[in-house]
Amino acid sequence: MTSFGHVTLIGIGLINGSLAKALRARGGVETITACARRPETRERALELGLCDFAVEDPAQAVEGADIVVLGTPPLAMGAVAERMAPGLYPRTIITDVGSMKARIVADVAPHLPDPARFVPGHPVAGTEHSGPDAAFETLFVNRRCVLTPLETADADAVETIRAMWEFTGSSVDLMTPEHHDKVLAITSHLPHLIAYTIVGTVDDLEEQAQTEVFKYAAGGFTDFTRIAGSDPTMWRDVLLGNREAVLEMLGRFSEDLAALQRAIRWGEGDKLFDLFTRTREIRRGVIAAGQSYIRQQDDPLADRP
Amino acid sequence: MTSFGHVTLIGIGLINGSLAKALRARGGVETITACARRPETRERALELGLCDFAVEDPAQAVEGADIVVLGTPPLAMGAVAERMAPGLYPRTIITDVGSMKARIVADVAPHLPDPARFVPGHPVAGTEHSGPDAAFETLFVNRRCVLTPLETADADAVETIRAMWEFTGSSVDLMTPEHHDKVLAITSHLPHLIAYTIVGTVDDLEEQAQTEVFKYAAGGFTDFTRIAGSDPTMWRDVLLGNREAVLEMLGRFSEDLAALQRAIRWGEGDKLFDLFTRTREIRRGVIAAGQSYIRQQDDPLADRP
Repeated sequence: MTSFGHVTLIGIGLINGSLAKALRARGGVETITACARRPETRERALELGLCDFAVEDPAQAVEGADIVVLGTPPLAMGAVAERMAPGLYPRTIITDVGSMKARIVADVAPHLPDPARFVPGHPVAGTEHSGPDAAFETLFVNRRCVLTPLETADADAVETIRAMWEFTGSSVDLMTPEHHDKVLAITSHLPHLIAYTIVGTVDDLEEQAQTEVFKYAAGGFTDFTRIAGSDPTMWRDVLLGNREAVLEMLGRFSEDLAALQRAIRWGEGDKLFDLFTRTREIRRGVIAAGQSYIRQQDDPLADRP
Repeated sequence: MTSFGHVTLIGIGLINGSLAKALRARGGVETITACARRPETRERALELGLCDFAVEDPAQAVEGADIVVLGTPPLAMGAVAERMAPGLYPRTIITDVGSMKARIVADVAPHLPDPARFVPGHPVAGTEHSGPDAAFETLFVNRRCVLTPLETADADAVETIRAMWEFTGSSVDLMTPEHHDKVLAITSHLPHLIAYTIVGTVDDLEEQAQTEVFKYAAGGFTDFTRIAGSDPTMWRDVLLGNREAVLEMLGRFSEDLAALQRAIRWGEGDKLFDLFTRTREIRRGVIAAGQSYIRQQDDPLADRP
């Protein structure tokens, strides 16, 4: 029977909470300690059965842990790592679940007694809901998880973290932090930034117009509001923490949008048609890659103008 | 028993095909004639049972019709109206399902023998699939349909078209074409334009990067590809046909995006956090307006970076 022993979760929201449930449900853990700053979060985590112990102090939380999973807002991880460092055992493996990696490596690694035990990670899974109540057992099933170990990482540490995510149902890929950040900038960070922007544009409309937007949101807007309902603290940290890659992709997007704007203004239908035909191919590629599914025709979120 | 008599569908794709199924399933129609340019479309419409007769010539198709529903690509409707006009009976009611209204009114009305019988419409429902095979009976259930009758419209014509859409399960609102076009520009047209743009941005990446985008699309990109998989001809027409309102909303969006870009560049986390918190409220408004549903936590499309 696989067991990952004593796992300490620093921060106990959607991701770490779901990890707790996934490990528990399959008997993959002996003890779970959760660390949270707010007393009500600790209390709730215990009530929900996400952990055996809930403590406030990071150094105390990591004592005796085989694996420590950092799941705080990404830009808080450096400070948390510094606070937990005195409690770490030499063989404890440290990982994280942050959505950008190079910055987290830079923030966290210097505080660790042995950076070779650090295996940065990013489970590419989630919902727009946050907090321990949003956690559920199957969040990682059939999803991907990226690990970005440093060149100096211990092989056994990498394999343990890989095994942990595979145990939850994910498929694991390894790459450099920089490569991860470029790929996720376009597949995740830019889409979120754009969704936040357009929903914000609506928020600036006068109140009556907003009410109508709500009524007719099914024409396409609904999907954007879902993405833009994601956790504000986390997304602030992700966009600031992956600034360069996000700005690079945003620059490309803005150029492309300006070109389309011009095509609309000048009635260049062929340019629009060509692009809209190409994007259909991309849709097929995404479906083929198994990261999507063909929606049922009675899907209530199906869109059309 | 409600019956709308002889209904002629000009164009028989997702929307008109679904209308045919919805009317048929509830016994709301005596005869359905479909008009399509391509022989294979006419054949398929007959095979699928979407119509009793399938003809090529619009003037022939509308002969004896109580209601004619224009469902061609929006910018083709003017030419189709001109071709069908000689076959129209004086009392035939004409409607359409185009996603922008002012331009369609301007294109179609002048060709009709009696514009008072024209009741422009827009069922705000659909999927990213197109063609007669994509049609299904419940497409309009619990969706909204906007009618934009001219001031000179016959009251009985408006009430008949309202009754037809209510019969399919939709709730019907009346407004001016111009007002419709402004509301839909932000709830539907701009979201589609943006989704097409970002998916196009990915299409311009080198091939290996694209493959990775497909793999990690679950981080948010997937939803955009679905929207950007919609019918190219229709969307070219919608964006060109609602040019002014789309450019106006696009201008606001671009300004807002530039402000966020600047906030990211200069590390202004508070600005990002404030926006991301406001957009959560909009999400709640959309859900409250019943145009969305709270996704189940095991939704395979749920996103997270």
